[in-house]
Amino acid sequence: MMELTDGWSGLLRRSTLSEECGVFGVWGHPDAGLLTHYGLYALQHRGQESAGIAVRVDEQDLRLRSGMGLVSEVFDPEDMKNLGGRAAVGHVRYSTTGEPSMRNAQPLCVRLQSTLWALAHNGNLVNAGSLRSRLEEEGSIFQTTSDTEVIAHLAARVGSGTARHRLETALGQIRGGYALVVLTPDELMCVRDPHGIRPLCLGRLDGGWVAASESCALDTVGAEFVREVEPGEIVHIDDSGMTSSFLGQRPSRRAGLCIFEYIYFARPDSNLAGLNVHQVRKQMGRYLAVDSSVQADVVSGVPDSSLSAASGYAEQAQIPYEMGLVRNRYVGRTFIQPQDSLRQLGVKLKFNPLRKVVQDRSVVLVDDSIVRGTTCRTLIGLLRTAGAGEIHIRISSPPYQYPCYYGIDTSRPGELIAADRSADEVRDLIGADSLSYLSVDRVAQAAGGDVADFCTACFDGEYIVPPQGEHDA
Amino acid sequence: MMELTDGWSGLLRRSTLSEECGVFGVWGHPDAGLLTHYGLYALQHRGQESAGIAVRVDEQDLRLRSGMGLVSEVFDPEDMKNLGGRAAVGHVRYSTTGEPSMRNAQPLCVRLQSTLWALAHNGNLVNAGSLRSRLEEEGSIFQTTSDTEVIAHLAARVGSGTARHRLETALGQIRGGYALVVLTPDELMCVRDPHGIRPLCLGRLDGGWVAASESCALDTVGAEFVREVEPGEIVHIDDSGMTSSFLGQRPSRRAGLCIFEYIYFARPDSNLAGLNVHQVRKQMGRYLAVDSSVQADVVSGVPDSSLSAASGYAEQAQIPYEMGLVRNRYVGRTFIQPQDSLRQLGVKLKFNPLRKVVQDRSVVLVDDSIVRGTTCRTLIGLLRTAGAGEIHIRISSPPYQYPCYYGIDTSRPGELIAADRSADEVRDLIGADSLSYLSVDRVAQAAGGDVADFCTACFDGEYIVPPQGEHDA
Amino acid sequence: MMELTDGWSGLLRRSTLSEECGVFGVWGHPDAGLLTHYGLYALQHRGQESAGIAVRVDEQDLRLRSGMGLVSEVFDPEDMKNLGGRAAVGHVRYSTTGEPSMRNAQPLCVRLQSTLWALAHNGNLVNAGSLRSRLEEEGSIFQTTSDTEVIAHLAARVGSGTARHRLETALGQIRGGYALVVLTPDELMCVRDPHGIRPLCLGRLDGGWVAASESCALDTVGAEFVREVEPGEIVHIDDSGMTSSFLGQRPSRRAGLCIFEYIYFARPDSNLAGLNVHQVRKQMGRYLAVDSSVQADVVSGVPDSSLSAASGYAEQAQIPYEMGLVRNRYVGRTFIQPQDSLRQLGVKLKFNPLRKVVQDRSVVLVDDSIVRGTTCRTLIGLLRTAGAGEIHIRISSPPYQYPCYYGIDTSRPGELIAADRSADEVRDLIGADSLSYLSVDRVAQAAGGDVADFCTACFDGEYIVPPQGEHDA
Amino acid sequence: MMELTDGWSGLLRRSTLSEECGVFGVWGHPDAGLLTHYGLYALQHRGQESAGIAVRVDEQDLRLRSGMGLVSEVFDPEDMKNLGGRAAVGHVRYSTTGEPSMRNAQPLCVRLQSTLWALAHNGNLVNAGSLRSRLEEEGSIFQTTSDTEVIAHLAARVGSGTARHRLETALGQIRGGYALVVLTPDELMCVRDPHGIRPLCLGRLDGGWVAASESCALDTVGAEFVREVEPGEIVHIDDSGMTSSFLGQRPSRRAGLCIFEYIYFARPDSNLAGLNVHQVRKQMGRYLAVDSSVQADVVSGVPDSSLSAASGYAEQAQIPYEMGLVRNRYVGRTFIQPQDSLRQLGVKLKFNPLRKVVQDRSVVLVDDSIVRGTTCRTLIGLLRTAGAGEIHIRISSPPYQYPCYYGIDTSRPGELIAADRSADEVRDLIGADSLSYLSVDRVAQAAGGDVADFCTACFDGEYIVPPQGEHDA
Repeated sequence: MMELTDGWSGLLRRSTLSEECGVFGVWGHPDAGLLTHYGLYALQHRGQESAGIAVRVDEQDLRLRSGMGLVSEVFDPEDMKNLGGRAAVGHVRYSTTGEPSMRNAQPLCVRLQSTLWALAHNGNLVNAGSLRSRLEEEGSIFQTTSDTEVIAHLAARVGSGTARHRLETALGQIRGGYALVVLTPDELMCVRDPHGIRPLCLGRLDGGWVAASESCALDTVGAEFVREVEPGEIVHIDDSGMTSSFLGQRPSRRAGLCIFEYIYFARPDSNLAGLNVHQVRKQMGRYLAVDSSVQADVVSGVPDSSLSAASGYAEQAQIPYEMGLVRNRYVGRTFIQPQDSLRQLGVKLKFNPLRKVVQDRSVVLVDDSIVRGTTCRTLIGLLRTAGAGEIHIRISSPPYQYPCYYGIDTSRPGELIAADRSADEVRDLIGADSLSYLSVDRVAQAAGGDVADFCTACFDGEYIVPPQGEHDA
Repeated sequence: MMELTDGWSGLLRRSTLSEECGVFGVWGHPDAGLLTHYGLYALQHRGQESAGIAVRVDEQDLRLRSGMGLVSEVFDPEDMKNLGGRAAVGHVRYSTTGEPSMRNAQPLCVRLQSTLWALAHNGNLVNAGSLRSRLEEEGSIFQTTSDTEVIAHLAARVGSGTARHRLETALGQIRGGYALVVLTPDELMCVRDPHGIRPLCLGRLDGGWVAASESCALDTVGAEFVREVEPGEIVHIDDSGMTSSFLGQRPSRRAGLCIFEYIYFARPDSNLAGLNVHQVRKQMGRYLAVDSSVQADVVSGVPDSSLSAASGYAEQAQIPYEMGLVRNRYVGRTFIQPQDSLRQLGVKLKFNPLRKVVQDRSVVLVDDSIVRGTTCRTLIGLLRTAGAGEIHIRISSPPYQYPCYYGIDTSRPGELIAADRSADEVRDLIGADSLSYLSVDRVAQAAGGDVADFCTACFDGEYIVPPQGEHDA
Repeated sequence: MMELTDGWSGLLRRSTLSEECGVFGVWGHPDAGLLTHYGLYALQHRGQESAGIAVRVDEQDLRLRSGMGLVSEVFDPEDMKNLGGRAAVGHVRYSTTGEPSMRNAQPLCVRLQSTLWALAHNGNLVNAGSLRSRLEEEGSIFQTTSDTEVIAHLAARVGSGTARHRLETALGQIRGGYALVVLTPDELMCVRDPHGIRPLCLGRLDGGWVAASESCALDTVGAEFVREVEPGEIVHIDDSGMTSSFLGQRPSRRAGLCIFEYIYFARPDSNLAGLNVHQVRKQMGRYLAVDSSVQADVVSGVPDSSLSAASGYAEQAQIPYEMGLVRNRYVGRTFIQPQDSLRQLGVKLKFNPLRKVVQDRSVVLVDDSIVRGTTCRTLIGLLRTAGAGEIHIRISSPPYQYPCYYGIDTSRPGELIAADRSADEVRDLIGADSLSYLSVDRVAQAAGGDVADFCTACFDGEYIVPPQGEHDA
Repeated sequence: MMELTDGWSGLLRRSTLSEECGVFGVWGHPDAGLLTHYGLYALQHRGQESAGIAVRVDEQDLRLRSGMGLVSEVFDPEDMKNLGGRAAVGHVRYSTTGEPSMRNAQPLCVRLQSTLWALAHNGNLVNAGSLRSRLEEEGSIFQTTSDTEVIAHLAARVGSGTARHRLETALGQIRGGYALVVLTPDELMCVRDPHGIRPLCLGRLDGGWVAASESCALDTVGAEFVREVEPGEIVHIDDSGMTSSFLGQRPSRRAGLCIFEYIYFARPDSNLAGLNVHQVRKQMGRYLAVDSSVQADVVSGVPDSSLSAASGYAEQAQIPYEMGLVRNRYVGRTFIQPQDSLRQLGVKLKFNPLRKVVQDRSVVLVDDSIVRGTTCRTLIGLLRTAGAGEIHIRISSPPYQYPCYYGIDTSRPGELIAADRSADEVRDLIGADSLSYLSVDRVAQAAGGDVADFCTACFDGEYIVPPQGEHDA
């Protein structure tokens, strides 16, 4: 609703923040808080804006610690000491539209009558706006602008019943793409939306349970991977064990894991639907080399997200793979924007071409995607200044043309460089000698399925869950 | 609900914080934010735990700045710049039971459907607990533990109508002692409970309106005192002027300004019900000298709150008034408690007797009240160490025997030294040579009325608004 | 030299900060650090800009904690835990000219070859500038702009010998008014300048030694007053006891305690040269009533520093003493300056006249001094607005006409309202009906001596230690 | 000397911190401060403990901003605004022994008589201890424990002459490995030690001059590389241009760039002595494959520093290069150490093996060096857990056996795993199937010279500048 600590700030206006987040949960382990802390480190790439952990300290009470910034900035050693709880949930969050807000940091902790709930949520609801309006008309007062609180209010309005019943009833009213972990004093509940757009998996450690957005977080805490939560499944874990149920009818709905998790978002050492992300990306690079071959002296990738695809391209094309760009690891979120006269410097801070590698050579530069085209155009300029000859851009995904409504922030349609431009037009705009994309079929093939197995709305506009028009405004 | 910024902390449990607070409001002045800032300085004695200001920046939006600590700690010059709003409300708060909480800082800003409200509230509701339970059962989610939010939820549940209608409907359901200032984008509303237990007055400045808990805050901003808000009155101010209405039937209820405002709580330069607080206190001292005279060499007061009464006593008794105790102005809330072996030092930090004044003399020490007796006993010890002869304690109020449920924090009944002890027993406990109180009739007489004109529940247990048993638990 | 932590800041330029400070020291007590902490609370009125404590943790090492702000802001409970040292020195500091600087916070800790020294210093050296220039020419590098460091460098340059010898040799080269406490791993040394311009006294507690700028700090920690350090005396305390020596020839020099310590600077509960400060001030008020009587209805003082003198005036003149002005205790150093249009409000924040006390009455307003005249003029305006009739200003000290070079900050000569104006001119400027000062002879008489016993340079320009012209620049 | 701001801390004790640092300087550019800020980003890999910038604001004054932490943490946008200076120096610093200290943050700004100097220094002096002792005996007072201040005091003691003369005289007394940039109001001086152990290069931008530890920082600000500062050279830059002189006799001394700059320390996109660091590392990997070939399925490097060598090894050996380990980029300096029971988790936070890449495969793991062996042993354990078959460790440098005294921190000799162990013993200790090093001759060959062209003391104990025994204690 308002910033309580950092100066004057505007009160809440409704907005539709698109968020990319990571969630983590533990039940039944004596180091639940510390495990969650480590798990969030492993999921940090999914959100760097805020981080939070809620620990169940006893049958009555939860404790919450959250703040703006990286996991390493939010928590200090004192925070992590003497946390005796056997259950916890954690969250990392990133929003690129709207101003970041402490109020929206998660887990969201609310009291539903006599019981405290902590909710950690990755994704977006497409009907959040209309639900919120209805709830406010009925007298609910919202504290945040997040979709997560809509779920909490819906659950609060369920007259009676178990927490599981309340949650199921609430989720029956929402639509969108989400992974959700809910901690109450009595149980941990893990849910994926009916299409499985956002990932969520389960593991076991020392007799307890661990849930995480990605399997790399299970590895990090040493948990054994058990299985993914299925689309539409509610996994309910308490001291008497784990049970499962489904939202509505189980098998009829079309599955639809977000294909962008494979392309860019997930960590290369995570497995999704049984496939390793690095290997899927490498395969995308190989297909790209097959479909869009070119004569060149050297293949480079844009560090770090495109290195897997670039190495696949190089292998397939049998062109030497080289470190053409060095990335400065210390240029992060808080970088100070340069004055106009020095804008070029700002870009050079982040990437530096390796002149001795690219000079007088024909270069294939592989990137995982082009969204607005700004970075790509700038990198081409840097390479040219460093003496590169021909520059061939190879994108290991299709043209990004449509906004995502299920949890990955994208620029507005007008800012998507490929929204209404052909590949040749984009090529000219960014100054490349050639530009090729990978087709959506090839992407799906690299990910072990076909287009019908994934949400590919950002490429083809086929929205599994219609956005209801709320977001079009 | 939880502390978002400062380490792990327990989530909300229901508690019945008794709060002493100050409220301030401005409508129709171009420096509304800055005036409120100054007004809070003038009301700082009513609450040092947190401070906040909400400014109406335009017809849609409010801005809030609040924080833990003194006004001078919460606001810095940058905060106060460029505040163009013509309306604002402010609040200072103090709670002595329970841990202080950022979440409970006021003004409380909430969105009721499409409208933002900022509420600044002084007082306590006796039926807050049962109202909160009912609202939670109906699905409301509370963010704070404060009574103020109960009022907000009640107003949110009113299906339709103007803000004034919503507020009146909500206030119709609550009982207790309170002064309330509510700012919406369209109006400023100022309310006192039907018995007028908490004070609230109105003034005018440069064509605009100012509301404040005490008249000293009107003086501070240069506003002209107009009148007090009457018990049960809702003053409604907007750009078309000021109108007034009353909660329920107007004249039938018994009035009951808290007598402790005169005794201790208000600033000496404030006027309440037309009487100057310093002069009322001085009169209490005179009556005390009449009713409980004693032979002595010197009269001293405990600085600062008892200096008025002490000077009245000295004048009446014709005993020289002297500075027997010096108070260290720099010992405040954040004082570091001494180790056991140095506990005596801790007390000496705050008060130092003036040996050359008290040595070998018989001293009348006037204090405004005795609550737990600890300070009084310690001061007597310090005076004895400094060589004082006889020490006669004169209290300018009756024995404090019953808890207050309307907004002044008191110790639990078991901690009130006078709850079940005669004056002689208390005298022996604190080590005085004599001890006398002022009767409740005399106190009322000094305040210009009789007992029926005031709330004197803390002295006689006659609660104007029955506490419903919720607080007895 | 520079601010290391709070943004860009200018590097050191030579400046002649005039400082008012308090010093405290302990030797041979197991709670040395905590006692010093409490002692600084008692001396806080002597300096609110920075505070610091150095504790001798063992025979090799000192630990320092200092910071900008009040004692309560600089130290937190964690700082005070587990301080096992048996010796410590502390310092509070205030500078009104130049920007406050963390670098100048004291105690100043320096390594002289293999030994750490912590110096706490109250006062100013009149030859600091020339000494500093000479030392820099010889290759010394200064860290601060404080005079204290000049003493440290002089001691460092003494080729060999004991710490006492080094200190004596250094002090032999300096001139000015000062009280100095120096802690080394082996001893505590306490020094007053040869004229005794700045105060310093000694006490004992539990077998150990305590030194303090004022006796109120001895009271606060429960130490028994032993005696004052004599002008020119070096008191040397170590585990084998206390010894004393003198700088140069002992008795020949003229004594000269700063008369302003009695008038304004010291706390009323301190004793200086055997006289209680409150009682001296009260006597000044009595003399003022004798010398400058006037017909009036009421006498008031400007809180807090003038209340003693005002009560003396009222007693002598047999005019009722009343609380004509209430001071807001919460308006402190960090007050936000109002915009031009609201400047009047800013003044009202600090003082509020009690209208019912002053209205239609002739008022004697007693103040301890007039420096620039701004506050006095404003107070007169406030009283007039509150309806006061005649306003007679009575100042319990002579016209302040000359700058102080020995440690009390004063405005530049051009800003001293009395520097070149007669009493009548000042009266007209501030808008009073009459204005009278107390003569310097009367002031000295109230302080138990005659003018020759004190430094009265600010009133008569008779500088005990010639300022060398350095400060005139 | 002491921490002024963050709690109690020990005063200075002499210590011999080994520091790895980066320096940067600008003369004659209107954006000198901002360029330095960007330059420090590019040099951040050379030190993450503190950062600082001193800007020449006019002919009299410098401004300093420094603090603990990364460049992005120390500076905020407000710091960088409106910096009108045309000259600046900057510094990033890292120390691994002893506690990090704000006092030691650089640039070191000191006043030498009437002139301010700002010194930024990379390296260590081998005779700092004896020089410091002598200076202290002569009465100098040190503020820091850094070697840099020794240089400043030596310069301060030079009786007269230009800044250049003072600096040359001071440097004539010191011995060690260093790169130094000194800014005075009148000039910028850039120096390398007579053997050129630490790197320093010069560039030009928009008519001004830029100096930097590595050429990647010139690239980042868009400066054109001019040349390296030569061993023993003092480059003197002022508004009339650049001149050069040499410390002592120029050509007779043996050159000795630290070979570890090539192996590990410099950024891969920097060039040193005309060779690109990435390409030198790749060549080391190729030689390693030639000299220590092994049958394997896959080659991986330890990210990030070993990826160049690993790719060279893979190319030469014609074994597929794969991403066997993923590094978590968010695990940094402030990572919270796990409890004993979770120590394994702590390690897994930083590196995660890619199971699908290494499972059932024979792996060559290339690392640039082994210092204590801890990380290597742990990585081998992680790979085994992930199912790797044989694990062959290939180190692209010789056994690290001797401490460095010229500016790169190393563990104590007793902690160097190779100090007294054969390769086979180390292999067994870390649990590898085989272990091979690259010979010092091969390392020098890859760096384009022979052993006599570099400082290789850490490998062979041949110290170019004898350490004098001070550091042996």
